[in-house]
Amino acid sequence: MITSPDNSQLKLIRKLQRKKERDSSGLFVAEGEDLIEAAEDAGWTPEVLLFSGDDVEPELLDRVSSLGSGSRVIGVYRQRWAEPVGDLSVYLHGVGDPGNVGTVIRSVHALADGPVILGPGCADPFGPKAVRASMGSLFARPPARAEVGQLMGALIALDSSAETAIADLTAEPPLVLCVGAEREGLPPAVLDAAAGTVAIPVRPGGPESLNAAMAATVGLYELGNRIARDA
Amino acid sequence: MITSPDNSQLKLIRKLQRKKERDSSGLFVAEGEDLIEAAEDAGWTPEVLLFSGDDVEPELLDRVSSLGSGSRVIGVYRQRWAEPVGDLSVYLHGVGDPGNVGTVIRSVHALADGPVILGPGCADPFGPKAVRASMGSLFARPPARAEVGQLMGALIALDSSAETAIADLTAEPPLVLCVGAEREGLPPAVLDAAAGTVAIPVRPGGPESLNAAMAATVGLYELGNRIARDA
Repeated sequence: MITSPDNSQLKLIRKLQRKKERDSSGLFVAEGEDLIEAAEDAGWTPEVLLFSGDDVEPELLDRVSSLGSGSRVIGVYRQRWAEPVGDLSVYLHGVGDPGNVGTVIRSVHALADGPVILGPGCADPFGPKAVRASMGSLFARPPARAEVGQLMGALIALDSSAETAIADLTAEPPLVLCVGAEREGLPPAVLDAAAGTVAIPVRPGGPESLNAAMAATVGLYELGNRIARDA
Repeated sequence: MITSPDNSQLKLIRKLQRKKERDSSGLFVAEGEDLIEAAEDAGWTPEVLLFSGDDVEPELLDRVSSLGSGSRVIGVYRQRWAEPVGDLSVYLHGVGDPGNVGTVIRSVHALADGPVILGPGCADPFGPKAVRASMGSLFARPPARAEVGQLMGALIALDSSAETAIADLTAEPPLVLCVGAEREGLPPAVLDAAAGTVAIPVRPGGPESLNAAMAATVGLYELGNRIARDA
């Protein structure tokens, strides 16, 4: 039973709230029974696993938790990165909100066979908010990293000003749905490389666009249905 | 120029971070130029409007901001509630995350003609996180409140265990897409009243379901396309 706040495992957990420490160590933290169970289901072995009351004094575990409510269990895992392959995957460019990144990891796990591919300017998928928003899908479907030039397949660029609706697109898999930051959108390098540039149509008088995670999810739904229909 | 932290307008703004104060006063706060502009575009007149440096000392405005970064402008507005009508609207039941509520307000503004209808157990749409996540759509498309029995039209219940895919549904508008909390789902009262219970199909080995806001957005996209096609 850990009874000292100076314990090295507790210190590690606290340090891993910072991206710099996650990058240098290649480790990350998952909190709560649901996430720990999702990791186990996906065959991940924790580097550290501390149950409140069994392995560590509850107050000490709460003190290193990233949740206001504290945690009953905290695990430390080694980061895994997938290859950017699949009949359907999604490339995010400049999506800096960790909740959005985590949510799209969950959506890709639900609706596609490939991973979320992270380009420049995206939030760290192994940060606490992204891990939580992925609801465990991070373990089943680890993210990938790639530059635009490394993407394989037909790039389908989402652009709210495009004239073609995503439902009217014709393209053969493998497809990579490309989604940019909410204001800036996708950079010219992605738009130039795209096999098609399409919009999710918005009603007259509506907002300029959907939230980035919403747009990615609707796009995955539409393209996933397309691939299934054409198969 | 306001130079005292005891100024009544500043005190009001701070108080309105609490739901109890919003409920009793019928007011709410919007922060930042984008939201203030969205309010103006939608024809809302603020009860209070304070620009940093012009109307109030910057440090004092930052101190009542709900954002870590502080705000350049803060407005106070009177809450408005819409009627639960439209060819396509979405009913949320027990969706307690304010970010999800705000995001669905933005999605409904993009993809439907009706409002977000809030049932029991939903987050306050006029709380700071929900207002921010709506990205101004709250002003263009205020939410509605209703009990299940007050909903008009064909209720389409989203249930991840349903056997019918939402794409295979046949139903005539007006349609009300019903979305429940992520774990509990929809209560029997909604399922019993529904004209159809459908799922957004998830891949084998995928997560049990999508995030509530994602499910609502995909459902609105699918039903909106259906209505447009059949019109």
